[in-house]
Amino acid sequence: MKTVILLRHGESEWNLENRFTGWTDVKLTEKGRQEAAHAGRLIAQAGLTPEYYFTSYLRRAIHTLQIAAAQMERDWVPVVKDWHLNERHYGALQGLNKADTAEKYGAEQVRLWRRSFDCLPPLLTPDDPRFPGNDPRYAALASTELPLAESLQDTIARVRCCWEEVIEPRLHNCGCILIAAHGNSLRGLAMKLLNMTASEVIDLEIPTGAPWVFTLTDRMEVTANRYL
Amino acid sequence: MKTVILLRHGESEWNLENRFTGWTDVKLTEKGRQEAAHAGRLIAQAGLTPEYYFTSYLRRAIHTLQIAAAQMERDWVPVVKDWHLNERHYGALQGLNKADTAEKYGAEQVRLWRRSFDCLPPLLTPDDPRFPGNDPRYAALASTELPLAESLQDTIARVRCCWEEVIEPRLHNCGCILIAAHGNSLRGLAMKLLNMTASEVIDLEIPTGAPWVFTLTDRMEVTANRYL
Repeated sequence: MKTVILLRHGESEWNLENRFTGWTDVKLTEKGRQEAAHAGRLIAQAGLTPEYYFTSYLRRAIHTLQIAAAQMERDWVPVVKDWHLNERHYGALQGLNKADTAEKYGAEQVRLWRRSFDCLPPLLTPDDPRFPGNDPRYAALASTELPLAESLQDTIARVRCCWEEVIEPRLHNCGCILIAAHGNSLRGLAMKLLNMTASEVIDLEIPTGAPWVFTLTDRMEVTANRYL
Repeated sequence: MKTVILLRHGESEWNLENRFTGWTDVKLTEKGRQEAAHAGRLIAQAGLTPEYYFTSYLRRAIHTLQIAAAQMERDWVPVVKDWHLNERHYGALQGLNKADTAEKYGAEQVRLWRRSFDCLPPLLTPDDPRFPGNDPRYAALASTELPLAESLQDTIARVRCCWEEVIEPRLHNCGCILIAAHGNSLRGLAMKLLNMTASEVIDLEIPTGAPWVFTLTDRMEVTANRYL
């Protein structure tokens, strides 16, 4: 039997400012840090002992993991940081205020960008400082690998890749893992684990700071899931 | 050209209590956390950008690294946690107050345990809760791999192993690395890097929270070293 724990990071600075965040590397707020600590305590109280951690390249997820791990007194557990677990890339919307954007483009257009499965937000140009190819942390990657913007479908495709190539092989060698990531990247994992359809995943809302625990057979079939 | 930064963790709870710590997983004090943040700022101000992190299984080193990385805004850098970078194992002295121990065994005996190269402190028995074989984080290791106590020489031997098998291969593929660890494990790395003798390494005192920067050729020969 295997256990997979999904944990969505808590409140970040741009949640407060109501801005499209995506790959922008904003920090957790104090409330976000408290959510992370609470999540760590819940995992420890449930008697779960992750043996491998996975997180994104974005510090709101990395710090969530570190804070939770400290509460679990399992700081020493190995961690893989993988950009494939990043939040959906919001293209040229990144940094814009959501209300301003709705005023400019219309609420229906913004709803489509945010809530459709395969609709792309406006693309960045490769010379935009927001393009990941201009960020040193992605320097080792071919710029063709990096998005100018992503639909939810694009995000889910790269998350699935990470599950198959990075996460599942390690899960074969241990009993419990913890993945600290983002709303849309965790949707991708949930879609994979629960065999959800596109329309189901669009409606899926994952709460922040609430450990979502999946029980799997050794053949990676999910038999149960619950929030702590 | 390569850059290796050694960083010794700052003040821990048991430094304050004057106890033998070794592999006991004590926390940093607030002063220790500030030392770590200061070190991160010094590294960033020097324009150094580590591409790989290494640390021990002990949270005073892991937290030092995490705090410094946050100051550098390089939380996303991959990290290897390796027990070979742990502090020297102080055997049955772990947990004892240093002044009480000197009173009981004599100052000269304690000086020998602390300051000789090959003298072993009193051994643990394998049923002692302080024996690493009874700690889940070392569960995957054969108990014969784990110490009942270590001389400085023993510590240095396993650190050297880690350099050769874990650190150096990764350093070949990047320009700069940061190793956050402990007084005696860092002595082992310094001995290796600077070709020091046993008597030189005994006298080597590495300050806490002060990044020690080594410049190496691509053939791993040290050409310069300085504290920031």
